[in-house]
Amino acid sequence: MAELSSWNDGPAKSAIVDFVERTVAEIEPEARIAVFDNDGTLWCEKPMYIQLDFLLRRFREQAEADPSLRDQQPYKAAYSGDLKWLGDAVTKHYQGDDTDLKPLMGAILTAHHEITVEEHAGRVNAFFAEAKHPTLGRAYTACGYQPMVELLRYLETNGFTCYIVSGGARDFMRPVTGALYGIPPERVVGSSVGLDYRDGDLFTTSQPEFLDDGPMKPVRLWSRIGRRPILGAGNSNGDIEMLEFTRGMRLLVLHDDGDREFDYTAGAEKSLDQAARDGWTVVSMRNDWATVFGD
Amino acid sequence: MAELSSWNDGPAKSAIVDFVERTVAEIEPEARIAVFDNDGTLWCEKPMYIQLDFLLRRFREQAEADPSLRDQQPYKAAYSGDLKWLGDAVTKHYQGDDTDLKPLMGAILTAHHEITVEEHAGRVNAFFAEAKHPTLGRAYTACGYQPMVELLRYLETNGFTCYIVSGGARDFMRPVTGALYGIPPERVVGSSVGLDYRDGDLFTTSQPEFLDDGPMKPVRLWSRIGRRPILGAGNSNGDIEMLEFTRGMRLLVLHDDGDREFDYTAGAEKSLDQAARDGWTVVSMRNDWATVFGD
Repeated sequence: MAELSSWNDGPAKSAIVDFVERTVAEIEPEARIAVFDNDGTLWCEKPMYIQLDFLLRRFREQAEADPSLRDQQPYKAAYSGDLKWLGDAVTKHYQGDDTDLKPLMGAILTAHHEITVEEHAGRVNAFFAEAKHPTLGRAYTACGYQPMVELLRYLETNGFTCYIVSGGARDFMRPVTGALYGIPPERVVGSSVGLDYRDGDLFTTSQPEFLDDGPMKPVRLWSRIGRRPILGAGNSNGDIEMLEFTRGMRLLVLHDDGDREFDYTAGAEKSLDQAARDGWTVVSMRNDWATVFGD
Repeated sequence: MAELSSWNDGPAKSAIVDFVERTVAEIEPEARIAVFDNDGTLWCEKPMYIQLDFLLRRFREQAEADPSLRDQQPYKAAYSGDLKWLGDAVTKHYQGDDTDLKPLMGAILTAHHEITVEEHAGRVNAFFAEAKHPTLGRAYTACGYQPMVELLRYLETNGFTCYIVSGGARDFMRPVTGALYGIPPERVVGSSVGLDYRDGDLFTTSQPEFLDDGPMKPVRLWSRIGRRPILGAGNSNGDIEMLEFTRGMRLLVLHDDGDREFDYTAGAEKSLDQAARDGWTVVSMRNDWATVFGD
């Protein structure tokens, strides 16, 4: 398949092509709904979530403006550049320990509050215009996985409609998903803070609304799509319920390529067990992808 | 315009056509977002919301199964057929008095709880397969306004994407918006109860999630669409904030046609004042529509 030229011939590619061909023969286009996790599934999530870098820069700004913040986490980590504290907080979360996630969430919720949704998009665009991945030597906007972008296009060519359903913030992803993945803002489902309407504008608040992870993923995707997906793709324990809710093909991206990307299973243990038990298609980055990143 | 053949020539039709032609010349298709209220804007909302009939039938079933409910509102009204209590509850709400709305909301929230989203859709489909409007002598599925359906098609022909943003329940509308309006479930925004994920399925709960009315309309449409609409259409005070958030054309349907539909402004007083003050386009059912309902 020319369309999947970044995929090596092998069981994952064959399973995808077989599924898509069967779908085209049997399922009407309206029901061809595919959902994709973002972090670790469509783009790189190591050494930390790209959104965390966006927030870290903001925490650093806030700590520069207010020295009293410099002794508190996560501002302390941001100000001193202690990225390990942050990475560990996320890994712990996926292992069931939210001790460090709580202060982090509080800071996240106030990092960009009381601005209009348009001002928020402006800050996101400013970040992506200059920020680079700390170790891969490429812009964050070039950190999408080429085989997955090809898969999105291949699915669309075959009448599928693709959505992102991510634990990342909805309004952080939306400004760049068009350029990165060809996914427009109305097909980006993610975590959110409450918004306040005042005088013709919408303002961000510091009130959490949804953490779009785990069992919340099927709830939010139903809210947004109103149909059950027939193809789902994820890479972590937070994607299990979304994949269970999917009736059809389930893909789980395995990060086993320390040379070209990263090699880890922390936070994905349960999902890998379930993939083995239930016959989900595991996509090995090392074996199934001829290319990881585009130019 | 052949496409708007159910509209009389006049100021409303001219304003719409001028706006659409200007939009096509100046605005890229991705930004051509139009949002429509449903009850009273796309279909008939009198003598009561169509969804209320759906719920009334359920309340009656519940009162038949449990006699103790027959002395409590709204089961009493449903069981005895006292529709006035229900209509008044809604009118009072739009006038700022929620005394009767509260027990009604409680009953609404438990009417269809603890079933899967697919079972819920099945109950909705069963209702629409048999229910008829109590006075117009037509199926509820034929209670959409033909000029508005033509407007949806005219907008789509000109590159717009149209959404429903309604105070009605999202999962009550979705099963029929395709056949009625050509609007698929993913473009239906409405009120919702929380959903619970269990073992691969989503179950309705009795927990309110969003009442998609008033200032919540711009919040919810942003959540779903992630863009600011350039055309908005409503008919009541609950649509004011959505229309304010819209930057472009605002339409307000005026129910002034007691012969062909209904003649009322209750619950629309503030929106009509604001339309006059801010130059929104008022669509007079009597003067602007050659036909109200299709065959």
